Amino acid sequence: MVFGDPWSLLVIRDVMFGNRRTFGALLSESEEGISSSVLADRVERLVDQGLLSRSGDPDHAQRVIYNLTERSIQLVPVFVQLGAWGRRHLDDLAPELTVRAALLEEGGPELWEAFMEELRGMHLGSGREAGGAGVLARLDAAFAEAAAERKDPERHSG
Amino acid sequence: MVFGDPWSLLVIRDVMFGNRRTFGALLSESEEGISSSVLADRVERLVDQGLLSRSGDPDHAQRVIYNLTERSIQLVPVFVQLGAWGRRHLDDLAPELTVRAALLEEGGPELWEAFMEELRGMHLGSGREAGGAGVLARLDAAFAEAAAERKDPERHSG
Repeated sequence: MVFGDPWSLLVIRDVMFGNRRTFGALLSESEEGISSSVLADRVERLVDQGLLSRSGDPDHAQRVIYNLTERSIQLVPVFVQLGAWGRRHLDDLAPELTVRAALLEEGGPELWEAFMEELRGMHLGSGREAGGAGVLARLDAAFAEAAAERKDPERHSG
Repeated sequence: MVFGDPWSLLVIRDVMFGNRRTFGALLSESEEGISSSVLADRVERLVDQGLLSRSGDPDHAQRVIYNLTERSIQLVPVFVQLGAWGRRHLDDLAPELTVRAALLEEGGPELWEAFMEELRGMHLGSGREAGGAGVLARLDAAFAEAAAERKDPERHSG
């Protein structure tokens, strides 16, 4: 079963939306507090399943970069629908997470396709890397804006 | 975490697409061979999370009927996208399962909405139950057709 446990999906989500490309980034920035051994196990499994690939120097674990694959990039619509569901039905989501989900949902299949194409450039080395106005940058900006507003509700959004 | 393990999603899938409404049906028709105790635990958890509800005589476990809720009915688009992904990327899916996934994918949001409305009639007692030409009936027919063709490839589909 590919989605044998929820950590696998969370790891892919963090690589995809958080652009966490190293073991250290996945470990230290995990909101859910995954342990080092569980993360190592899940990453190994995801590589075996063709959902992540490694690049970099295999002899230097610190230099290994994790990439999405075409197989995992095509999970974008699954994450969009999960996010759309979550922002309606999960009360404990941080508002800045729901902002990102709303943007993707409202953008529709055209935006998802653009995001997938951008991910191909970033992860498959297809040389089609998007510039600063890419989808991920827009998601990040909306996320940062919402987080800043939550910290300081008086702030003008300009 | 709502989707704390894959069995929870599989149970909802079986209630939603297989119309398995009793504990016995969920247990005996499970393709993945879930055990009775794991199933009991997951069903309990899904009820607690508002993803399933029980109707029938609480004193007679054999007569309890499980219903989807509005919360779980809204997972239809998640299952559609998971199915769309699965039929492209999982080699070991039975062809008749991929037929159902393809129909839902190709039908687009309009068909998903019709299916959700049909599920509301079947599970929420909203009195809007669909007739024989409903979405579930069409999915079942396509499924049965594909299964029959696999058994007998010479068969004419008329």
